[in-house]
Amino acid sequence: MTIVDTAPANDNRRSSRADTLAALKARFGARFSDSLALRQQHAHTRTWLPNQPAEAVIFPESTGEVVEIVNLCRASRTPIIPFGVGTSLEGHLNAPRGGVCLDFARMKRVLAVNIEDMDCEVEPGITRKELEAHLRDTGLFFPVDPGADASLGGMAATRASGTTTVRYGNMRDLVLNLTAVMADGSVVKTAGRARKSSAGYDLTRLLVGSEGTLGIITGLNLKLFGVPEAILAAICPFTTLEGACRTVTSAIQLGLGLARIELLDALTVKSVNSYSKLALAEVPTLFLEFHGTPAGTREQVEMFKELAASEGGGPLDWAERAEDRNKLWQARHDAYWAGLGLRPGAGCVATDVCVPLSRLAECLTETHADIAAMGLIAPIVGHVGDGNFHVLPLLDMGDAAEVVRVEEFNIRLVERALAMGGTCTGEHGVGSGKMKFLGKEHGAGVKVMAAIKKALDPDNIFNPGKIIDLP
Amino acid sequence: MTIVDTAPANDNRRSSRADTLAALKARFGARFSDSLALRQQHAHTRTWLPNQPAEAVIFPESTGEVVEIVNLCRASRTPIIPFGVGTSLEGHLNAPRGGVCLDFARMKRVLAVNIEDMDCEVEPGITRKELEAHLRDTGLFFPVDPGADASLGGMAATRASGTTTVRYGNMRDLVLNLTAVMADGSVVKTAGRARKSSAGYDLTRLLVGSEGTLGIITGLNLKLFGVPEAILAAICPFTTLEGACRTVTSAIQLGLGLARIELLDALTVKSVNSYSKLALAEVPTLFLEFHGTPAGTREQVEMFKELAASEGGGPLDWAERAEDRNKLWQARHDAYWAGLGLRPGAGCVATDVCVPLSRLAECLTETHADIAAMGLIAPIVGHVGDGNFHVLPLLDMGDAAEVVRVEEFNIRLVERALAMGGTCTGEHGVGSGKMKFLGKEHGAGVKVMAAIKKALDPDNIFNPGKIIDLP
Repeated sequence: MTIVDTAPANDNRRSSRADTLAALKARFGARFSDSLALRQQHAHTRTWLPNQPAEAVIFPESTGEVVEIVNLCRASRTPIIPFGVGTSLEGHLNAPRGGVCLDFARMKRVLAVNIEDMDCEVEPGITRKELEAHLRDTGLFFPVDPGADASLGGMAATRASGTTTVRYGNMRDLVLNLTAVMADGSVVKTAGRARKSSAGYDLTRLLVGSEGTLGIITGLNLKLFGVPEAILAAICPFTTLEGACRTVTSAIQLGLGLARIELLDALTVKSVNSYSKLALAEVPTLFLEFHGTPAGTREQVEMFKELAASEGGGPLDWAERAEDRNKLWQARHDAYWAGLGLRPGAGCVATDVCVPLSRLAECLTETHADIAAMGLIAPIVGHVGDGNFHVLPLLDMGDAAEVVRVEEFNIRLVERALAMGGTCTGEHGVGSGKMKFLGKEHGAGVKVMAAIKKALDPDNIFNPGKIIDLP
Repeated sequence: MTIVDTAPANDNRRSSRADTLAALKARFGARFSDSLALRQQHAHTRTWLPNQPAEAVIFPESTGEVVEIVNLCRASRTPIIPFGVGTSLEGHLNAPRGGVCLDFARMKRVLAVNIEDMDCEVEPGITRKELEAHLRDTGLFFPVDPGADASLGGMAATRASGTTTVRYGNMRDLVLNLTAVMADGSVVKTAGRARKSSAGYDLTRLLVGSEGTLGIITGLNLKLFGVPEAILAAICPFTTLEGACRTVTSAIQLGLGLARIELLDALTVKSVNSYSKLALAEVPTLFLEFHGTPAGTREQVEMFKELAASEGGGPLDWAERAEDRNKLWQARHDAYWAGLGLRPGAGCVATDVCVPLSRLAECLTETHADIAAMGLIAPIVGHVGDGNFHVLPLLDMGDAAEVVRVEEFNIRLVERALAMGGTCTGEHGVGSGKMKFLGKEHGAGVKVMAAIKKALDPDNIFNPGKIIDLP
C-alpha cells in the first residue's frame, strides 16, 4: 500500500504547524503520539486509496479538550480528522493535507439511559456492540446495525444504516441531538430531547452525514426502542431476483412488520455454503426478520409466505428461538468473509449504490450482466427493503490494471443507479472516494454544500479533502 | 387587527423596489395583484402579531417563473414570502420588510404517483386533503395530518407534524427530496428518490423547517404508506393525567402499533360534550388509533386495555368500521372549535411546546396550575405520543392587557418546557412569533443558523425577519 507524505509544502505554514504540534504535544503528553505505525493505522482504509497518515494522533477525553485542540489548530490551519474505530470504507480517515487525528477511544462513556424516554446519551467513541452490552438489561435496544462494530460517532458522521433500517430508520432518523465542537471553538448542542421540534434549522441532520467536515461530534443522544416481544427469523429462496424484489415490494406495501430484509445473490449463497458448511439452494435468497407480538409476527410470516409463493419463492424456513434464529441468519452474517473466500488472497471493494425499489431488480440484473461481461468475481448482498446493495468485486489490490477495471465497473454501477433516480452511496458516505460522483448526483446542490462548508469552516480545518474540496 | 405599513424607509431602495414591482407586474399581468384586501388576506395570522401585508401577491405557475421572480427581486433586495393556504400560526406570512408574496395556488399538480416505490411527486400548493383525494384508489396514503388542510409546501417549510407522527413520522421524516429555488436563482433538487443516501450534506432536512428563509420550495417528493389492512379506533378515560401519560409511555415501549395517541384534558372533554352533544366522562381522555393486521390490532387493543387498567384508565370503547371510528373520533376533531365555544367571541392563541415523554405529566400538571392561578380558560389537547401539547388560552384579542398576560403565560410555558429538555415549538415553527425563544433554546446554535442563512441568502431576500434576524 502506498504511503503519501502529507506534510504541507509551504515553509511558513509548516513552521506554524510545527508550533501547533509542539503545543499539542506539551498539552496532551502521553495522549499525543507521532509514531508512524500508529499514524498509518489511523489512516487505514479498505478502498484502493493510498494510506495518507496524519502528522499526529491525539486521544481527547472531553468536549473541553476538543475545544482546546480546535482553538490551537485554527491559528495554523492545521487539519483535524476525527477517528472512531476505523471501519470507514471511503478514505474518510486519510489526512491528504496532514494535520492531527483525534481518536475517541477514551470517550466511550454512556452518560445516561432514559428508560421512559427511550433514549440514551453517549460519547462518540463507544461502539454499537458496547452500547448493546450496556443496554442488555433495560428492555431497550439501539437498532442501527451496519455490520462492522463501528463507533456511534463515526456512524453518525457517515449517516450509517444497515440491516434494520427498513423498519427502524438509520442514523439520520435515530439521532435525537448531537453535541459538536464547531470550527470557531464554540460548542453546539443541536437540539433538546423532545421527539420533535420545529425550532429553526435542523442542525442535527446537517451534522449527521457531514463526515467531520462541519463540526466534531463529541456527544450523541440516540433514540432507543423496546425489545420486541416476539422475533421471528426466516429465509426464503427464489427462482429469480425479480421475484425476490417484487415480494419485498409487496410486503412493504402491506406494512408487514419486517425488521430486516436481506438479499444474497446465488454466488453469495454458494460462497456461504462453502464457508459455513451449509447446504442452501444456490439461488437468490431473502433473509428476513419479523418483529412484533407473538400472534402478529406469525400472521406476518404467513402473509409473507403467500406473497413469496406467488413470485416463485419458497419454501420458507423460519425459527423463533434466539438460538435457531442465529443459526438461520449465520449465512448472512458470514457473507463478507465467505465472499472473500471465493478468491483466496484477494482484496475487495465495497460498492454501495441505492435505488428506488421499483428499479432494484433491473439494476441488479444489469449489474450481474456487467459482472459477467467483465469476468469479475463479485458477490452481491443487499439491504433490499431500502433498495441498497453492495457488490463486492474481488481483486488483486497490487495489480494496477485490475484496480482500474474495478474502478471503471464502479463508475458504471454508480451511473446506472443515478440514471434510475438513486444515489452513489446508500450508507458508506462520500469520503474522498466518492467525491467525483457528487456533481453528477447533486448538480447545483454541490454549490450549496460548498457555501455551507465555507460558512461553518472558513479555514477548512475540519477533515479537508472530504465531501467538498475547498481550496 | 393592526395593519402596519411595511414600505421601506430608504428612498433609493424604494425606487429600485418600485422598478422591480413594475417589472413583475408587466411580466405576470393578471397573476400579479397589489389589491390591499388580497395583500392583507395573504398576511393573515392567527397570533397576536399585527397584520403586515406584502406589497404585492404573485401567482407563479412553474419553477422557472419562481426563478425569474427571484432574479428580479435580488437586484433590489425585494423580500419574497412564500404562501400555501395561510394556516400558519406564528406570523410566517407577514411581510415586515415589504416585498412580494408568492401564492402557490396555481402550482398544485400531482406530477407522479410511484406505486411500487410508495412515493409521489407534487407541487407545493396542493393541500393534504387534495392529495388524499388524489391517492384514494391507489391503496396508498400520506399520513401527516396537522389538523388544518394545509399545503404540502407549507407543511414542509414549517416541519409540520400532527396526530399520526408517533407512528409515521413528520415532514422531516417523510419528505424524500425537495426542489427549491435558491437566492442566487439556481434550482436545487436536494436528493434522488432512493430511500436513503449518505451522499453529502442533508439539504432536504436543511430546507424542511427553514420556513422559506433559505430557499423557495417548488416541488416535493413524499413518502407514502400502504393503507393498513385493519384500523381500530378507541377512546379511554383516565382518572389522572399522570395515569394517561404513563400508559402512553408503556404502550410505546411495548411497540404497540399506535398510529394516533391524542390527549384531551377534562376541560376540553367538557367543551366537546357541549359542542357535539356528547356525554363523555369529563376526565382526561386518550383518543387512540391502531393500525395493522386484523389479529394484530385486536391483540394490541387488548394489551392497551391492560396497561390502561393498571393506571386507572378505562373502560376503553373501541370501533373497527370506518363510520363508527369517525363517530368515536368526532370529539377530537371538534376540539378546536369546541374549545372556542367555552368563551363565545373570544380569540385563541395556539401554544406548542414539546417535552421528553418522561416529563410530560409534570409539564401538564404545572401548566394546569398556572392556568388556574391566572384564572385563564385554556383547554389542552396533546399529541402525547410525541410529548407535544397545545394549550389554547381563550382571550379577547382587543384587550391589550389580556394579550400581555397570555403572552407572559406562554413565556412561562416555554421556559418550563425548555428546562425539561423540550422545545418552544413541536410543530408550528418559529416565524416571527417564537424568535425570542431561539437563543435560549439553541445557544451557540443560533450563530450557526445565522451563518447558514447568510451564506445561502446573503441579501436576506427570503422571508426576512423570520427565524433568524439578519440586519
